[in-house]
Amino acid sequence: MALIVQKYGGSSVADAEKMLSVARRVAKNRREGNEVVVVVSAPGDTTDELIAKAQQITDSPDEREMDVLLATGEQQSIALLSIALKSLGCDAISFTGPQVGIVTDDVHTKARIVRVGDSKIRSALNLGKVVIVAGFQGENKEHEITTLGRGGSDLTAVAIAAALKADVCEFYKDVDGVFTANPSMVKDAKKITFISYDEMLEMASAGAQVLNARSVEFAKNFGIKIHVRPTFNEKEGTIVMQETKAMEKVVISGVTYNKNEAKITVRGVPDRPGIASILFSKLGKAGINVDMIIQNIGEKGHSDVSFTVDKSEFKKAMKVVGEASKTLKPAGILSDEGIAKVSVVGVGMRSHSGVAANMFKALAEAGVNIEMISTSEIKISVVIDEKDVTKAVAAIHKKFNLGKKVSGVRG
Amino acid sequence: MALIVQKYGGSSVADAEKMLSVARRVAKNRREGNEVVVVVSAPGDTTDELIAKAQQITDSPDEREMDVLLATGEQQSIALLSIALKSLGCDAISFTGPQVGIVTDDVHTKARIVRVGDSKIRSALNLGKVVIVAGFQGENKEHEITTLGRGGSDLTAVAIAAALKADVCEFYKDVDGVFTANPSMVKDAKKITFISYDEMLEMASAGAQVLNARSVEFAKNFGIKIHVRPTFNEKEGTIVMQETKAMEKVVISGVTYNKNEAKITVRGVPDRPGIASILFSKLGKAGINVDMIIQNIGEKGHSDVSFTVDKSEFKKAMKVVGEASKTLKPAGILSDEGIAKVSVVGVGMRSHSGVAANMFKALAEAGVNIEMISTSEIKISVVIDEKDVTKAVAAIHKKFNLGKKVSGVRG
Repeated sequence: MALIVQKYGGSSVADAEKMLSVARRVAKNRREGNEVVVVVSAPGDTTDELIAKAQQITDSPDEREMDVLLATGEQQSIALLSIALKSLGCDAISFTGPQVGIVTDDVHTKARIVRVGDSKIRSALNLGKVVIVAGFQGENKEHEITTLGRGGSDLTAVAIAAALKADVCEFYKDVDGVFTANPSMVKDAKKITFISYDEMLEMASAGAQVLNARSVEFAKNFGIKIHVRPTFNEKEGTIVMQETKAMEKVVISGVTYNKNEAKITVRGVPDRPGIASILFSKLGKAGINVDMIIQNIGEKGHSDVSFTVDKSEFKKAMKVVGEASKTLKPAGILSDEGIAKVSVVGVGMRSHSGVAANMFKALAEAGVNIEMISTSEIKISVVIDEKDVTKAVAAIHKKFNLGKKVSGVRG
Repeated sequence: MALIVQKYGGSSVADAEKMLSVARRVAKNRREGNEVVVVVSAPGDTTDELIAKAQQITDSPDEREMDVLLATGEQQSIALLSIALKSLGCDAISFTGPQVGIVTDDVHTKARIVRVGDSKIRSALNLGKVVIVAGFQGENKEHEITTLGRGGSDLTAVAIAAALKADVCEFYKDVDGVFTANPSMVKDAKKITFISYDEMLEMASAGAQVLNARSVEFAKNFGIKIHVRPTFNEKEGTIVMQETKAMEKVVISGVTYNKNEAKITVRGVPDRPGIASILFSKLGKAGINVDMIIQNIGEKGHSDVSFTVDKSEFKKAMKVVGEASKTLKPAGILSDEGIAKVSVVGVGMRSHSGVAANMFKALAEAGVNIEMISTSEIKISVVIDEKDVTKAVAAIHKKFNLGKKVSGVRG
């Protein structure tokens, strides 16, 4: 008997049939003797429809009230899933985020979890019930409804798993697990059986969309084992867990890419202390997340600074750079929205040399030009032309023999 | 400056345009210096759509979870109305039933209000905000979401008005007020300017659908003045309040009808004590509401008992009567689903004789046969053939000169 937290996304509960299919799976897990807590997102397009309703009233709806509005989506899901479970003869009870004691800070639409109550859930589990909790939502200390922003339901699941010291937190997705590369791009991409938190974190922040980086970080901090598995079959997926000796034998876990970034280069700024600080503190104050940063010393005591930001923040970033230019007085500002970032991730990199060289060689052989390079202990990222992404990912995947890895070797 | 509680129904907030129209009206009331609390129902068909979603999963969805599901409708309305008000520059804040402290008993889907908190609302009003509260919902002592059943949002409005000792509780409807008869049936039906709680109660229970009897009773108990007024124009409607001397001068306030009842007659039962008790206690135990009851002594120490029930409970009632027959051994059971109840209501009846005679005369002149008669201090109801309703209401309306009353005479 295990204590399992399961998280189902919106597409898994989009209609009555899918809801019943999820309910049957949950009921089976319960019958097998497990204690089951289910976290659900809003059904299908509900959240988008609610946002559209608010947008019909005004372009800039109040954020406190948007949280009140959006929280209704997940509340529908918990009620309907509980109804489905009970109709199958499996006792269940639903709770909203506030009811279950998910306390957050005051930042409406992107609140952070401060505390998770466990007494309501434990009492219901002790009565033999399946407990269904609304993802994505909580309340602040004044009992105002808050929502957790992007990937919020995943975060709810991990936070509850941590509060309950669950044996595993299962994420049901419309993919079979985490792959060595995007399977729609690389035909012989292999499902990864085991992966460390750090690798998963790097892969998530490098563009692998299957898991949200915030949730992986939370899981790592509390040592929660994550199992990413497919919704509509019973196969094992990918387990994200503490690093093991076996994992280190594998140099590269996977290749990821991200086409949602844009590059900005500030050319010919004075090469003296404090320059980078001026630029990036202004960007930080404007709430812009900067991903890669590279600085080269150029000619005559001047240097070029390049960085990437999310495409959605590109215009805002260009405005900030324009303002900073009044102080920095650069020789010029260049920008490129047609870029992509390709990364290789693997804990084995630490003890293996030549990984970067191999990656660059693969790209050169494929005729792909590298515009920026950035490395961490377990990741190497390059920025290339967006049109070369498929070619680059395939070349790297082949170079490191990722398609030929025996699945499960790392357990 | 007054403290006003306003209640808007689902059709008033069905889309963005209507929501903004309500918001403009509320904002105007606020600008005029009033403190305003708004209670809203779920937008348009939202509640029906949510019920349909549950029905797609199972025929008999769990009632606790139905409350969790249905409460999302009103939660959408409060968020959207608050967004609309803020977009117009009018400060507002929304609260769900549980947030505002509407505590109910444990009867899911038709809970009764036990207590209404006022501190949250008062604090927000003191900050100059318009307060928007979700109708129809509350929570029980264990913080489980409950809903109040039919007419629940009206009840929320009256309960909040009572807790705040509001000057008036305004109900915005898609009619101009309460009429002497249904205007779609009687062309010269007049809007009633003032009506007493008791008359309104009798009219509501006699079929006038503009206000729910539970809400009128609540308002009467706490002395809350109700103003029924039209949503889409600024006209005065009907004020429901404590009876005044002036009201007594008017014999009849209005004529109402109800086509949703069915009649059952149990013929030839022994005419001895306890017989009626056996029948009606069995019906009560089965949860069936009986409206009119008539008993006549028949021949040879036997009597006939007739009663009416809501059409939706007719089949259930017939089953109970069938079971009771094993004890009662009646000569026969008759039933008729094609009936209608027509009633005249007026506090002036108390001091005026001949009202019943006049009503019966009007019906006789119109060629309408009376099947049952039942009277209270301020109401006379008759059961007639369903096909005669329009004729009967028009004849009575004319007989009492209701179309020629000067509106406002009763203030």
